[in-house]
Amino acid sequence: MNRLMKPGARERETLLNSGLLSALGVESVAAMMEIAVIGNLPARQILFREGEPADMLHCVLSGYVRLYKLDPDGREADVELYGPGDLIGASALLDGSRYAVTAQAAEPSLIARFDLKRVREIASRRTDLCTALANALSAQLSRVFASLADDRLHTAPQRVARYLLSHCAPDGRAVSFRLPYQKSLLAGKLGLAPEALSRAFSLLRNHGVNVRGRLVQITDPEALRRV
Amino acid sequence: MNRLMKPGARERETLLNSGLLSALGVESVAAMMEIAVIGNLPARQILFREGEPADMLHCVLSGYVRLYKLDPDGREADVELYGPGDLIGASALLDGSRYAVTAQAAEPSLIARFDLKRVREIASRRTDLCTALANALSAQLSRVFASLADDRLHTAPQRVARYLLSHCAPDGRAVSFRLPYQKSLLAGKLGLAPEALSRAFSLLRNHGVNVRGRLVQITDPEALRRV
Repeated sequence: MNRLMKPGARERETLLNSGLLSALGVESVAAMMEIAVIGNLPARQILFREGEPADMLHCVLSGYVRLYKLDPDGREADVELYGPGDLIGASALLDGSRYAVTAQAAEPSLIARFDLKRVREIASRRTDLCTALANALSAQLSRVFASLADDRLHTAPQRVARYLLSHCAPDGRAVSFRLPYQKSLLAGKLGLAPEALSRAFSLLRNHGVNVRGRLVQITDPEALRRV
Repeated sequence: MNRLMKPGARERETLLNSGLLSALGVESVAAMMEIAVIGNLPARQILFREGEPADMLHCVLSGYVRLYKLDPDGREADVELYGPGDLIGASALLDGSRYAVTAQAAEPSLIARFDLKRVREIASRRTDLCTALANALSAQLSRVFASLADDRLHTAPQRVARYLLSHCAPDGRAVSFRLPYQKSLLAGKLGLAPEALSRAFSLLRNHGVNVRGRLVQITDPEALRRV
């Protein structure tokens, strides 16, 4: 990370609203703020690599960080995409463990990091921090179960349709919105090659989906539900 | 679960060696033993269903429990297979949450269950329990990341080869072993239809793999590594 610094007023505000810190009591917040260090990550910079000894817990303040695993011949498989408020590296909580995945900034990002040894030390004294960590992990596990099932149950166009529908209100009205990140990231998140995502978008045109750059228009969510 | 009972000497022994309880101090072990209830699950019995309010944490003492998600038209996608010592339902740790998946006994199983409200209450006083829960979740998250990446990176025969190789010593010697569970369960675990697993086993015959029932012989692990 570049230009490491103590969190200023704005970063403290963002941290206080993050999933982890918002669940803590005053004293645990103070203890975590005390050890927080903020840094900028330029796009594509690696935060940590799979297999490295885990020494930091990270929290995304702005931007997106992709998590992936590599196979021996260098191919990458995205397994998670974390955005503002998300905790990264919680799968390496256990003392002595190594990062299970590689984390890379998907766009310029602002990250808070916490020395994992000190996090463990605070958590061993303060159950609110320990509980908040377990709860964050619990939610992350549910999310990855959902991704795995989505991969196993659905075709590429169905996965894309489900992602788009998650941005629609349940009332079935037409909507338009901007994708929160580049299409290549969305492809990775859904376990698709970028070409497969383009093909899915083309096919979904017949189901009332128009995509221009990152702008998405959905004219008939009900039709999309039937893909 | 059938015939609920307090754990006897043998079940206490197994519980003490499970991932969760083995990490606890004497007092937390006593508190968890106090609330533990043991029951038998016949094969195919449902332990809990996706979407139900989560009220129990479970630990497998013997047998296997498969976790799956359902899509609206009733198709199932396996997302995890838990065996002896594994914790089930930890993804529903947060107060007020619902089970993220359905859990079904894959074979006759012996299960310990703990009232989740009381687990939370103990964990809020005892950091060793809270830490052990977080560590168990952390390991489970890493494992699901690996399954997701395996699905996204590898063909069916490659996934099967990798599973078989995980039973081989690194020295490259020939081995034979018994699959720990039925082939249909292995197929689900690897995200394959049973026919796809059979085709993969046939194809792997050319790479030194012989399968008879649940008995597997691997004559040349090095060849298998190159699949």
